[in-house]
Amino acid sequence: MAFPIVTLTSDFGLNDPYVAEMKAVILGVCPRATVVDVSHGIEKFNVRMAAYVLASAAPYFPRGTVHVAVVDPGVGTRRRPIVVQAAGCCFVGPDNGVLALAVRNARGPVRFYRITNREFMLPNVSGTFHGRDVFAPVAAHLANGVRAAELGRQISRIRTPGFAEVTRGKRVVVGEVVHVDDFGNVVTNLGREELRWVGARAVVKIRLGSATHELRLCRTYADVERSRPLALVGSHGFLEVSVNQGHAANELGVRSGDRVVLYRP
Amino acid sequence: MAFPIVTLTSDFGLNDPYVAEMKAVILGVCPRATVVDVSHGIEKFNVRMAAYVLASAAPYFPRGTVHVAVVDPGVGTRRRPIVVQAAGCCFVGPDNGVLALAVRNARGPVRFYRITNREFMLPNVSGTFHGRDVFAPVAAHLANGVRAAELGRQISRIRTPGFAEVTRGKRVVVGEVVHVDDFGNVVTNLGREELRWVGARAVVKIRLGSATHELRLCRTYADVERSRPLALVGSHGFLEVSVNQGHAANELGVRSGDRVVLYRP
Amino acid sequence: MAFPIVTLTSDFGLNDPYVAEMKAVILGVCPRATVVDVSHGIEKFNVRMAAYVLASAAPYFPRGTVHVAVVDPGVGTRRRPIVVQAAGCCFVGPDNGVLALAVRNARGPVRFYRITNREFMLPNVSGTFHGRDVFAPVAAHLANGVRAAELGRQISRIRTPGFAEVTRGKRVVVGEVVHVDDFGNVVTNLGREELRWVGARAVVKIRLGSATHELRLCRTYADVERSRPLALVGSHGFLEVSVNQGHAANELGVRSGDRVVLYRP
Repeated sequence: MAFPIVTLTSDFGLNDPYVAEMKAVILGVCPRATVVDVSHGIEKFNVRMAAYVLASAAPYFPRGTVHVAVVDPGVGTRRRPIVVQAAGCCFVGPDNGVLALAVRNARGPVRFYRITNREFMLPNVSGTFHGRDVFAPVAAHLANGVRAAELGRQISRIRTPGFAEVTRGKRVVVGEVVHVDDFGNVVTNLGREELRWVGARAVVKIRLGSATHELRLCRTYADVERSRPLALVGSHGFLEVSVNQGHAANELGVRSGDRVVLYRP
Repeated sequence: MAFPIVTLTSDFGLNDPYVAEMKAVILGVCPRATVVDVSHGIEKFNVRMAAYVLASAAPYFPRGTVHVAVVDPGVGTRRRPIVVQAAGCCFVGPDNGVLALAVRNARGPVRFYRITNREFMLPNVSGTFHGRDVFAPVAAHLANGVRAAELGRQISRIRTPGFAEVTRGKRVVVGEVVHVDDFGNVVTNLGREELRWVGARAVVKIRLGSATHELRLCRTYADVERSRPLALVGSHGFLEVSVNQGHAANELGVRSGDRVVLYRP
Repeated sequence: MAFPIVTLTSDFGLNDPYVAEMKAVILGVCPRATVVDVSHGIEKFNVRMAAYVLASAAPYFPRGTVHVAVVDPGVGTRRRPIVVQAAGCCFVGPDNGVLALAVRNARGPVRFYRITNREFMLPNVSGTFHGRDVFAPVAAHLANGVRAAELGRQISRIRTPGFAEVTRGKRVVVGEVVHVDDFGNVVTNLGREELRWVGARAVVKIRLGSATHELRLCRTYADVERSRPLALVGSHGFLEVSVNQGHAANELGVRSGDRVVLYRP
């Protein structure tokens, strides 16, 4: 490929030099790379938010893209650095759940590798910043055409995080809020399949925290009047609760991680 | 052109996956593109701020640049998606005023097109995110050399927003604050022409909100002592009120949208 | 070089059009350039923070990179615009200390030039934004292969800022906090050499502000229990004080600029 894409997702913020250090390493190994920031505004140590944001963006990138995700409270401990091959792309990061949602959504065969080959890392691997010393150079070598199997041996599975779980009862489904976006939209881990399961059509009956709401299932925000709440299946395929030109999470008192129950309307 | 430039201006912030999704779509259609963020820190739904920020940055980009602006409270409603050809560049976005200041400042002939050809959009256009599904792929196709006329029919005009208006009286001019920048500089929609109209030279007499100030018209911030207010024509050509190494907007109690009156000094 | 890298460090923030204007100018002069943001989240006018952040990131970039740093409270005054050649790279910015730490850390010969040749600036140099009108075009011309000597005459030295100073006593060293990062890590201007000087090995005895701490010298954050403080030499080579998964600066009441004293443990 002429211009391989490497994406970055982290909780580093944009004030410190850390993101630039990763880009420096990537461009040193693969000067033709186009590096795209998915987000560095992940809440510190919030693996769930990172997993959601990456899973949301990844399907829009072309085949051959290498995705790096570094939200890594266990840096320097025994958690494994991994590469996942899925949907014609590579996902690079620690095995702590941060890659799990993107991998689960990918179509076709999936292969897992444990990164152990120091030949593809920086000469000095620090104890504090594997994003720069391990994941960035590995990603750049993958972008250069190195095969995942050269990085380490294939493994059979990766850690599955709890935040991806959905429980189905009799016409009831229990999930959780995986993200509150910058507009205040409340994104759940439930989708069209779960709406069908409870038989929701024009109206969605949903419990968020301690309150239950009956909301119109809309196609777009402006389908209700300004400042009115609504439900819709967002462009990422997840059910979200929004307020037209308002901040749903604040107005409904909802936070990331809250339980969500979907009832038969 | 070897490396076509596509710029992005939005109110999406940098925490969520939305900006990355737009870049993914652009690079999928036009892998050679250099994507430049103008700003994703536009205040939510603040079309005026987006229009100002884009108009300020656009003149510095080379010919052939494609500018995309998405501040779009009406997404999914009947507001038109448009392309404007001006000054050898293309401007892509909703017809809600967000492109108006950049287009007004452009020299030479201007042409307007309504985007209707679905061939240049994503296969599934959501009701909530035309930035990714319509504007990003359209921009990337323009960067690839597609002509604006292929996107839809030419139209005669676009919406003119109220925030661009300046009223001239007898040696008095009324405008407004179009932007307060991160340093606290208060940027108005008045320029050198309006200063000439009221006869301002070394001193500017200006009403901001409820207070009237007589300020020295300077060439640079350090022309006055630290913490002192001053007026100058900023590098974008607009009259601004600043405080040397201070935050003019907070100290003078001024906000974006406030009325500005310029008097004969 | 195929794809020259130009990096940017500033206190402009990401909301305003200023960073995009610099990138526009760079890409206009050198369309092949890859522009990398080091940080635009430098505290306004905080030359020390900018100097630290640039010095931290610069060593990871490949030879030939052009680094631009613009934290410039004296813009438009007589402070000199300079270019420094060091370690196979160029550093461009005002002579106010912002380049000093990166240059001090660089190996090999160092040359200083004063930028005076207007041929490599924008045709109109404003009094308020030399980042765009002087430093960006100069950097892009350097990326294009222009030699530093063409920009202006060589000079013998640049300004040395006070914030880089370390004082050594009898088994005691006095330095300062140069940065508090987004995770709350407290970064000092002391390193391995100063630890050796005071004879610190497993334990570091350190005064931060008004309190003295005896901290375990660790290899990584997780070497102590969650919420416990520790000392380590960060990946940039500087001694830092951290709290495992906590915010050291808030918990210990430390701010950038605070005095740091290292004692014999």
